[in-house]
Amino acid sequence: MSKLVVVGTVAFDAIETPFGKTDKILGGAATFIGLAASQFEVDTAVVSIVGGDFPKEYLDLLEEKNIDISGIEIVKDGKTFFWSGKYHNDMNTRDTLVTELNTLADFNPKVPEDYKDAEIVLLGNLHPLVQLSVLEQMSKKPKLAILDTMNFWMDSALDDLHKVIKQVDVITINDEEARQLTGEYSLVVAARKIHSMGPKYVVIKKGEHGALLFHDDNVFYAPALPLEEVFDPTGAGDTFAGGFAGYLAKTDDVSFENMKNAVIYGSTLASFCVEKFGTERMVNLKSKDVFKRLQQFKQLTQFEIVLENN
Amino acid sequence: MSKLVVVGTVAFDAIETPFGKTDKILGGAATFIGLAASQFEVDTAVVSIVGGDFPKEYLDLLEEKNIDISGIEIVKDGKTFFWSGKYHNDMNTRDTLVTELNTLADFNPKVPEDYKDAEIVLLGNLHPLVQLSVLEQMSKKPKLAILDTMNFWMDSALDDLHKVIKQVDVITINDEEARQLTGEYSLVVAARKIHSMGPKYVVIKKGEHGALLFHDDNVFYAPALPLEEVFDPTGAGDTFAGGFAGYLAKTDDVSFENMKNAVIYGSTLASFCVEKFGTERMVNLKSKDVFKRLQQFKQLTQFEIVLENN
Repeated sequence: MSKLVVVGTVAFDAIETPFGKTDKILGGAATFIGLAASQFEVDTAVVSIVGGDFPKEYLDLLEEKNIDISGIEIVKDGKTFFWSGKYHNDMNTRDTLVTELNTLADFNPKVPEDYKDAEIVLLGNLHPLVQLSVLEQMSKKPKLAILDTMNFWMDSALDDLHKVIKQVDVITINDEEARQLTGEYSLVVAARKIHSMGPKYVVIKKGEHGALLFHDDNVFYAPALPLEEVFDPTGAGDTFAGGFAGYLAKTDDVSFENMKNAVIYGSTLASFCVEKFGTERMVNLKSKDVFKRLQQFKQLTQFEIVLENN
Repeated sequence: MSKLVVVGTVAFDAIETPFGKTDKILGGAATFIGLAASQFEVDTAVVSIVGGDFPKEYLDLLEEKNIDISGIEIVKDGKTFFWSGKYHNDMNTRDTLVTELNTLADFNPKVPEDYKDAEIVLLGNLHPLVQLSVLEQMSKKPKLAILDTMNFWMDSALDDLHKVIKQVDVITINDEEARQLTGEYSLVVAARKIHSMGPKYVVIKKGEHGALLFHDDNVFYAPALPLEEVFDPTGAGDTFAGGFAGYLAKTDDVSFENMKNAVIYGSTLASFCVEKFGTERMVNLKSKDVFKRLQQFKQLTQFEIVLENN
């Protein structure tokens, strides 16, 4: 088993979907990542920052999930990062209503001493220089550094983004972002260009259409489970990344073959995340539910053609 | 092995894509379906209509592929159906530039005597009443009737379309059309509604995102092979349907489990179709190429998670 260190936001979200709306609830990339990774009972530390307004019960919740929160800085007289968004009817697009950086504006991440030798580092969506600072604090080169990012940083900090992309082994990015980053429409060509920027493994997330894992000329396609209803997509991408990293940490095997399994686990956990508002479904997720859904994934994708070369 | 009868257009297409444009070339739904099915060396008849302007070499080509063309009516003083379209840069959308129905306007399909007992009937995209007339000519109820259709008939002949939908076992339809037909955004819910209209099996084609096969509460997901370049998407959906039906005819097994394989074959053949203009790639396709690509599909989708219930 490997240790996993995660940097990312721990935050308040307020969400509106066609199904209803929430007040400020627990959110943030590192929260979703940590909850997903906790399914694998690996040693996980979250590095983040919150304000004095952040409820102790939320921190307790993360601790109960065996997440090390010693790297979450609490700024007593500060306020916690707050994001509010509204999803359109198709649930694939959303408008950001509010972004209050608050304490996040001066976030200077500190990796706990115990985790400076973590084998796996997951850099959740944040300013690329903040992500880079986490990598630089590691006492030895991690076995696997995974980067999640988004179009916002391509628009506002592209040079810095390229610096961190160059340092990581895996990037997870959505299809539109892969196209924006490379100027290529074909995801196959886009993945090849991203390989040349640094990452040996490229994961392209396509939402309801699943995810693609590229490594050199190899490609693996994990579908998303077709769902009756997506209740709230918030955190699905982070949950995917957390499941991916958590499975790799648990199995201590970062081969391409094992990454296929990690992508399937990521997709499986993300399929739960969207069933309820915010973290609600992930907080209550039982391993027997995950087991059942993995069986569904097998049925969804596995076929029995016997190949005869004639 | 089962016999397969196909009704659909045999036509001229003129195509413009970002990669170039063609003059009038061989096209039509039944042409693509027949060429795909010919990969399985099953007894296939195409029922269609062309004008005196249709080159003998095109008919010879179909015959060389062992397709029975006795059901293709030739109207000596008529002209062949002609379609012309231009694809946008993303290759997912297109504008129709010209549609000349010509002889197709009075098409009265006649199923060859030898094929009135065919086990599998594939109703290619045509007016629903023309499709229905083929079903009515069968001397016994086919083991499997497959319907392909499109949004045009939903807009212009919905009542007739419902009549034929009620009579078939399988419908193949794209995602937007499934949503239009049912008024449901979720494809899972849409498939359930289509089940209730008649078809026990619903195949939803999602283009570059693959295809879903639904049967009761079961679902199977065949990805599309991620391609560097889609050269010309014309006929990809028909090729998918032809590969699906051809494989089922060859194996003489219409179970859900075997339909999974049929969907994979359909996706595999469609991945070739888009590599060249029109039918060019399908005409020259060798079984060893198909074999290699099926291996790629296996690598693309198969994973090895050992499920332990803990």
